[in-house]
Amino acid sequence: MSDARPIGVFDSGVGGLTVASALAARLPAETLLYLGDTARLPYGTKSAATVERYTQANVDFLERRGVKAVVVACNTASALALGRLRSALPVWGVIEAGAAEAAARSRGRVGVLGTEATVRSDAYGRALRRLRADLEVESLACPLFVPLVEEGWLDDPVTEAVARRYVTPLLESGVDTLLLGCTHYPLLAPLLARLAGDGVALVDAATAVAEQVAGELERRGLAARTKAGTDHFCVTDASERVERIAREFLARPVALELVDVGGAPEGA
Amino acid sequence: MSDARPIGVFDSGVGGLTVASALAARLPAETLLYLGDTARLPYGTKSAATVERYTQANVDFLERRGVKAVVVACNTASALALGRLRSALPVWGVIEAGAAEAAARSRGRVGVLGTEATVRSDAYGRALRRLRADLEVESLACPLFVPLVEEGWLDDPVTEAVARRYVTPLLESGVDTLLLGCTHYPLLAPLLARLAGDGVALVDAATAVAEQVAGELERRGLAARTKAGTDHFCVTDASERVERIAREFLARPVALELVDVGGAPEGA
Repeated sequence: MSDARPIGVFDSGVGGLTVASALAARLPAETLLYLGDTARLPYGTKSAATVERYTQANVDFLERRGVKAVVVACNTASALALGRLRSALPVWGVIEAGAAEAAARSRGRVGVLGTEATVRSDAYGRALRRLRADLEVESLACPLFVPLVEEGWLDDPVTEAVARRYVTPLLESGVDTLLLGCTHYPLLAPLLARLAGDGVALVDAATAVAEQVAGELERRGLAARTKAGTDHFCVTDASERVERIAREFLARPVALELVDVGGAPEGA
Repeated sequence: MSDARPIGVFDSGVGGLTVASALAARLPAETLLYLGDTARLPYGTKSAATVERYTQANVDFLERRGVKAVVVACNTASALALGRLRSALPVWGVIEAGAAEAAARSRGRVGVLGTEATVRSDAYGRALRRLRADLEVESLACPLFVPLVEEGWLDDPVTEAVARRYVTPLLESGVDTLLLGCTHYPLLAPLLARLAGDGVALVDAATAVAEQVAGELERRGLAARTKAGTDHFCVTDASERVERIAREFLARPVALELVDVGGAPEGA
């Protein structure tokens, strides 16, 4: 049995391409359909009701396009909208997957790195404590990481100086696991691993959700055996900037299809 | 004659507090009423129609609160919404004022620093060329400046390294005037002036619009002679983060009133 239908991946922007990359690396036989809701980003500053509505419209769009399952790569949507989502498909979010891997690996003290919105929501903290009540969790907003990644300054002395300033207090407080709780951060993983050293486990939610999806597709008989299609990338607003960042995240040029997911436009 | 009514200042967020500070410094007898539309920021990623609608609602709110004139501190709103605004009050934007001062001071080559949205709109470039067709204009997006300022890393080696990387190619291309085309950038002015050196004029739109407002109030008989009221600060969404940044921008603690400007909510 082989289910050739694509896996849908949705994010508010192009950051979720790190999740698509992790899925492609872990599941080379699967075809991906990516949707970046670039017209309405960022989600992190919007109300829960608005994020729920946008998430539902995006999942409905992927469902109409014939996906067999959906991965919600957006941290805000994972935190706020997964509970109330109406869908006949399996839907997985990055937060539960990232938290589960960190909880499994930590010796007791986890540092969570994320955007200000994610840290303020404490979504990873709550997920981690649900899984292991004994865990100590320290969360830190790193607002410079996303623009540094989007500038393409990955292996860079400026980025290293910024990362050192953010992460040093966490490391000094005895964190044994660093959870990268933002779609952009996997591109900083080599630098962060070097700063953290061997004694600290680095967990990224993108790799964690790819691992979870691999197991779940197998368990539900939904896995593909050979790659039948071509990965396809949709955005709700295209610009030179989005194309540049997409190229950088996927490490290759990519065609972006401009789509209308339906539902109420922003501010209408 | 003294007109004690406040001057309204509006921005999509708290960045426009640099404009409020410049007005307070230039016009110590005037009272200010500030409105930061923090619930709906950022404006830079939104359509012209949406920015127009938000700007109208914000100006209407300030008018209902009894201001005698409005300064639009938001670059996006200045660029997209001033033309179609309906208001009985005098309304001034940062772009025309900043461009006018840069055009008056430049010996021929202006570098414009701004956010990606402002640079993409080319609003300063068009305003500069309208004023002086002979000007050469080179615009550069500096996406790390806003988060660096919001982190409070103003006089900082990381910020200096970032600024040097951004500005060096502009300086090497022979720019004689640097126009700071973003509300946040005046906080980086000391650092940028040091990097640019004596031969380069630094023009910031906040100071420029304050100078313009001073002249226009005088000309129209609207100036206040002695300060009659207390400056007042309103936001459409309050958070610890907004309060922290407001405190940093004004260099003092400040009470923020949460207000509803009316009009359609985002995404409704």
